[in-house]
Amino acid sequence: MITAKSNSQLKYLATLLKKRSAREEDHVFVCEGRKMFFEILTQRPEMLVKSYWSERGLAGLEAAERELLAACDWEIVSDDAFDAVAETVTPQGVLAVVRMPQYTLAPMLTAENARLLVLERLQDPGNLGTILRTAEAAGMSGVILSADSVDAFNPKVVRSTMGAIFRVPFLYADDWEETLDALKGAGVTLYAAHLQGSVPYTEPSYEGRCAILIGNEANGLTEETTARADVRIRIPMEGAAESLNAAVAAAILMYQSRQK
Amino acid sequence: MITAKSNSQLKYLATLLKKRSAREEDHVFVCEGRKMFFEILTQRPEMLVKSYWSERGLAGLEAAERELLAACDWEIVSDDAFDAVAETVTPQGVLAVVRMPQYTLAPMLTAENARLLVLERLQDPGNLGTILRTAEAAGMSGVILSADSVDAFNPKVVRSTMGAIFRVPFLYADDWEETLDALKGAGVTLYAAHLQGSVPYTEPSYEGRCAILIGNEANGLTEETTARADVRIRIPMEGAAESLNAAVAAAILMYQSRQK
Repeated sequence: MITAKSNSQLKYLATLLKKRSAREEDHVFVCEGRKMFFEILTQRPEMLVKSYWSERGLAGLEAAERELLAACDWEIVSDDAFDAVAETVTPQGVLAVVRMPQYTLAPMLTAENARLLVLERLQDPGNLGTILRTAEAAGMSGVILSADSVDAFNPKVVRSTMGAIFRVPFLYADDWEETLDALKGAGVTLYAAHLQGSVPYTEPSYEGRCAILIGNEANGLTEETTARADVRIRIPMEGAAESLNAAVAAAILMYQSRQK
Repeated sequence: MITAKSNSQLKYLATLLKKRSAREEDHVFVCEGRKMFFEILTQRPEMLVKSYWSERGLAGLEAAERELLAACDWEIVSDDAFDAVAETVTPQGVLAVVRMPQYTLAPMLTAENARLLVLERLQDPGNLGTILRTAEAAGMSGVILSADSVDAFNPKVVRSTMGAIFRVPFLYADDWEETLDALKGAGVTLYAAHLQGSVPYTEPSYEGRCAILIGNEANGLTEETTARADVRIRIPMEGAAESLNAAVAAAILMYQSRQK
């Protein structure tokens, strides 16, 4: 059992929770909570590097769950030491080091019914988590993010995806212009969500390969990106509302594109 | 200028930020930030009780803005004392004590095109803020909350409404069953968002007076409330997604009901 807060494995966990650079260097991130852990263990065991259980967390397991643990690498951590590293207010007893899922652009582009979500400079972790969760439910075939967007492996994002982080294909575009060009080259119609859009979002049929473009929370899409879109769509707003929350706008558009 | 952190007005501000009971006793709450302050001052001056400006916040005002202050009761607070009471990480220089807007059920029910959102046991402040913001944009005529829902005057809710808290009529139902009965009595069709709903949400026309019912983040609507609904609607979900975020589900349904 690990009892020292200064234990090197716990320090590594804390670093992975806090630092994007550490996550990217090792291509791993940290998942919290029992539900997500057992989903990974049973459905994507190859993703699991190692898990750390608090005494409390381990005591809360049923016999069958405990048996499942035999198949993977894990260690017990004293409650005190565990709480010191855990991010949530009520840590659910397990922190797991997990390999990052890796996707490439080509299959996203060539899928027959490609329906993509493209996010430019999205900054809020809660928004990204909610968007990935909604993207799965809306049946989007993939999510593409600009490199300067918030890290999807940030613990707040991971938590709010409710597991979708393992199920929705997503990637960060190294070269943004090149990626938009690749989308256009593959015959994907680009719909830019824009406050000054000329087309109500309910008008297009979203048939064929399509992508919905959503911009930064405060500033929306850049002019350069908007200029590359095929259609600027607008979600009508009443009252004195100036904009919608980015995750809300994305949800409305993803579900609308599903109605085709 | 107030400089003592122990100043009774600052203590009152801190209590109003933290305690629902204190807000409800005095029928006031606290708004943060310059944008919201000037919106209230110019559009709803009768709501404003008093505002407190940090030295920094005051120094950042333009001459015209400073002139507007002459019309209301305000006080300067030293930056140190101000920061000690302010909730946000980067407080925007002003905290205002504001009267709660007060609405009643009758006009919500009898409006010709009543389109209401009904929230049961909603718990997350960010969700409620986003929902009120979206409700305004979607042109909902009002929002009704069960008494055990999160407080709309919680500072996190107020912030995330982006000002909609002053513009969307909303109220807490003292008696939940009675309120649902009043809705039905007024000929409002109740659409319950339900994971086991039999009707896809895109099917109804949402014509006439209607209300969309959204439940608690973890448990959805109670059986009792679901039983009183006229139609159980379902938002289809693909993949392994088990549910949608409550604010996302509310947004999809509010905007769908707008398409009638």
